[in-house]
Amino acid sequence: MGSIASDIGSQTDYAFTVYRGTFIQSVLPDAGSKPELSRNQGALWVSAADGRIQGWDWQVTDDNGFAELMSRSGWVDIDAVEAQAQANGHASKTRVKIVTADEEQNEFFFPGFIDTHIHAPQYPNAGLFGSSTLLDWLETYTFPVESRFGSPPDPKTGHQTQTDPKETPLLAQEIYDQVISRTLSHGTTCASYYATNHVPATNALSTLCHTRGQRAFIGRACMDNPDFCVDYYRDFSADDSVHATHQTIEFIHTLDPEGKLVKPIVTPRFAPSCTRPALQSLGKLAASYSPPLHIQTHISENINELALVKELFPEADSYAAVYDKYNLLTPRTILAHAVHLSADERALIRMREAKISHCPASNSALGSGICPVRTLLDDGITVGLGTDVSGGYSPSILEAVRQACLASRLLGQSAAWQRDHPRGADGYGADGREKLSVQESLYLATRGGAAVVDMGSDLGGFDMGMLWDVQLIRLGEVKSVEKSPLDGVPGDGSANLVQAGPVGNVDLFGTETWDEKIQKWVWSGDDRNVKAVWVGGRLVHSRA
Amino acid sequence: MGSIASDIGSQTDYAFTVYRGTFIQSVLPDAGSKPELSRNQGALWVSAADGRIQGWDWQVTDDNGFAELMSRSGWVDIDAVEAQAQANGHASKTRVKIVTADEEQNEFFFPGFIDTHIHAPQYPNAGLFGSSTLLDWLETYTFPVESRFGSPPDPKTGHQTQTDPKETPLLAQEIYDQVISRTLSHGTTCASYYATNHVPATNALSTLCHTRGQRAFIGRACMDNPDFCVDYYRDFSADDSVHATHQTIEFIHTLDPEGKLVKPIVTPRFAPSCTRPALQSLGKLAASYSPPLHIQTHISENINELALVKELFPEADSYAAVYDKYNLLTPRTILAHAVHLSADERALIRMREAKISHCPASNSALGSGICPVRTLLDDGITVGLGTDVSGGYSPSILEAVRQACLASRLLGQSAAWQRDHPRGADGYGADGREKLSVQESLYLATRGGAAVVDMGSDLGGFDMGMLWDVQLIRLGEVKSVEKSPLDGVPGDGSANLVQAGPVGNVDLFGTETWDEKIQKWVWSGDDRNVKAVWVGGRLVHSRA
Repeated sequence: MGSIASDIGSQTDYAFTVYRGTFIQSVLPDAGSKPELSRNQGALWVSAADGRIQGWDWQVTDDNGFAELMSRSGWVDIDAVEAQAQANGHASKTRVKIVTADEEQNEFFFPGFIDTHIHAPQYPNAGLFGSSTLLDWLETYTFPVESRFGSPPDPKTGHQTQTDPKETPLLAQEIYDQVISRTLSHGTTCASYYATNHVPATNALSTLCHTRGQRAFIGRACMDNPDFCVDYYRDFSADDSVHATHQTIEFIHTLDPEGKLVKPIVTPRFAPSCTRPALQSLGKLAASYSPPLHIQTHISENINELALVKELFPEADSYAAVYDKYNLLTPRTILAHAVHLSADERALIRMREAKISHCPASNSALGSGICPVRTLLDDGITVGLGTDVSGGYSPSILEAVRQACLASRLLGQSAAWQRDHPRGADGYGADGREKLSVQESLYLATRGGAAVVDMGSDLGGFDMGMLWDVQLIRLGEVKSVEKSPLDGVPGDGSANLVQAGPVGNVDLFGTETWDEKIQKWVWSGDDRNVKAVWVGGRLVHSRA
Repeated sequence: MGSIASDIGSQTDYAFTVYRGTFIQSVLPDAGSKPELSRNQGALWVSAADGRIQGWDWQVTDDNGFAELMSRSGWVDIDAVEAQAQANGHASKTRVKIVTADEEQNEFFFPGFIDTHIHAPQYPNAGLFGSSTLLDWLETYTFPVESRFGSPPDPKTGHQTQTDPKETPLLAQEIYDQVISRTLSHGTTCASYYATNHVPATNALSTLCHTRGQRAFIGRACMDNPDFCVDYYRDFSADDSVHATHQTIEFIHTLDPEGKLVKPIVTPRFAPSCTRPALQSLGKLAASYSPPLHIQTHISENINELALVKELFPEADSYAAVYDKYNLLTPRTILAHAVHLSADERALIRMREAKISHCPASNSALGSGICPVRTLLDDGITVGLGTDVSGGYSPSILEAVRQACLASRLLGQSAAWQRDHPRGADGYGADGREKLSVQESLYLATRGGAAVVDMGSDLGGFDMGMLWDVQLIRLGEVKSVEKSPLDGVPGDGSANLVQAGPVGNVDLFGTETWDEKIQKWVWSGDDRNVKAVWVGGRLVHSRA
């Protein structure tokens, strides 16, 4: 890569950024078919004014072709010719910034990942869950750490009086800042965050996402049910839940009036943590905006949770029906987990066009079970991926891609799957079609996630007009084999010390097809392979 | 860490290396109890002559205490006082090298990992497996890549005439060299490798391990059954299998006569790939040495494989019985996978004291199933961890630790487990005791693996007399919170670019107990956290 584009957020002195190199994205060839990866080489340009893709040329295969494109388009490279431009009378031409992916280093542009479910305040607990399952995990690990993000509301008024982000404890601010750094460094360009129930901290998270340039939905976690929530960390009434949520919505609408980067999302934590009045009011609150606000909650993660919901809401036909009753199942609703849904619940969710966030690392870590993603997809439900930090131990959506593949390969052997599916010829559950391929999981991580946050026409690929929310992946160069490693290795070991390379764990030996390179990236890649990340055309992360 | 010790392999001018700092290891408090982690702070010393632990002092908590230890022991630091030593009349004292783990950087010494099952020639395929399962994976991915490590034997004589490592294709040498680099960089101090059936390449792997200083068992893969093996890659007779294996054994015994670092391991690939005469002869070959040679093979990985073994060996009561008939189940036998063993097979394996290599990443990736590790342990069988590259996608045993934990958390929901175990009160299979904790998985990765390779008294911990096969782990410093991240973040984004730190993905916020730090290492750590690796006291990997 030559030089990385400067920021779009500020006033720029050029009209386009022209990205040059290899572009790989997930595509759905046609409805009903499975996602594939498509690869193009050439040039693609993004408007500096709005950060959206304005065009491309896949015929540009070499320097001559690129020069011709520049000339034909009346473009001058601001870095290469800034000085000469005036002198040569180019001042009338259109100034562009050029960013090149290095073919020798096996660099390529890939759509940014979308994390459809992540609890920002739980990040300090990433990796800490012991052998717990959902309900004891919440009490042992989660509520204590979340409660430290602010003071509880005044029990007399029930209201939090403070809204200023700077009222947030310093460590909590630092944690939120680090969550953004980490997720960006793993290529997450858009995240749907749960915050805590503290208004100042929720506003701090919004501010930090906005300033740092990460696309985000920010939800204040609502939890007012004294029968389930702990006293040291809850809302004291349904009114308080709604009032405080409203404060965070107003804050975000002031921070980012057009919602270009940060948007509010109404967040009843999950059915057991909310009273019926709170659920009802939050459904109303979301619907009172135009367009209606996004909503996020959890559903059917763990079988003890199912039993709890049945006990708390005996009048409801199902877990999904609880949410539906209070108008919380909408086309802009993100339901996390959905491991144990019934066919009726899937039909209801499909009918309401609510979306599902699949969080495989979390489901395995907490032993929640294996979400039957193929069944959800077959039923026509939209699915994306979530890290679910810190039920999930990793802030990386690439790790979620891996775990989605792995979990799906164990699904056929689960008792639940075998109950519902005849055994296939291979002796496993069904015919193996429950397995998610790397290509499919990458689709869920990009276009799938985009659809889950109801931004399918803005994010997830390289379509015309889409926002440039993109990561530049660097796999590194192919290993050169010049001399025998059996030669010249002194017996004293002094020359044997390995200084591991800077480009992570992907090893290319020159025999790989490009599709195999992508598989190697998925299975061996990490944040070291994410060389740069842009959101809406703005560079928000880079790695030397 | 001050300076890292130079090599033991060469003649040293000091008597001990004194390691100073925090030492964490897995221990079994008493028979029948679960493994725990133990932590000591102080100093430990290793003989430069044989690389073994000679003593420790856990009372040394500060610089004064250390100075006192040095003085009391009559030691001088060769780095600090080399020049003065002569002048001050210290020449009569014992010269020692000092290596200090940096507490500020949360560094600690941890026993090296033991990879009890890895296919070195498959490394270029790491991450390439698509949606295949064992038998089609072998044909599609594995045999083609392995076949490129040398020329097939002369079909007339059946023998490979070449034994010289340098007859190995250059790319194959490079692949083997890189496997060693990668596994060392992930903290693997000892590996039980499968090579291919080519004698020169097998000898090249032995030479490279010996030169690079990685402890290794090297096995030439035997496969002479024309009904299963492909023509382009197989031994042409049982005689050829045995003859060529013998050549690699002799080569290793010449290379490392005392077997200090590299040892041969007899390797019938797995029952379906071998004829009865080959199995019989290989069992005899192993037994003909004193002590008997190690043996490694695969068992009960995939249910189609079980059916194949039944078809090929109708006379045998079980898969394990096939190996037992040919004296291949010994106390020095490593059986990889063991996912679907019957109770009778487990009893047989226990009786023969054969060992099991659990390869969870591979079992999930190939959809082989979930190995019931708890059951194996309950039955008194010795278990270690293996990466099974490239059925497993990662050369990291830390990844195997993670996957062992994750798979065990899904085990209770598998049909096989539920068939054999009543449901527990939590509604899941049994009572949740099938779950492996981080502490248990780390035990399997160190002391468990040591026992699997029959070196339980030499490797896996910090016991007196054990070999210094150790990794220095660096988690990095606790995040300091000095000013609000809400301050001083310019809106133009120019100051927002994240230059991710050098120490990987572990984030410490100062609230973690040391046990929680270990959990964070396991769940978020990678090769970036492995700062140095020693084998037998020799430094074989370091990272700036």
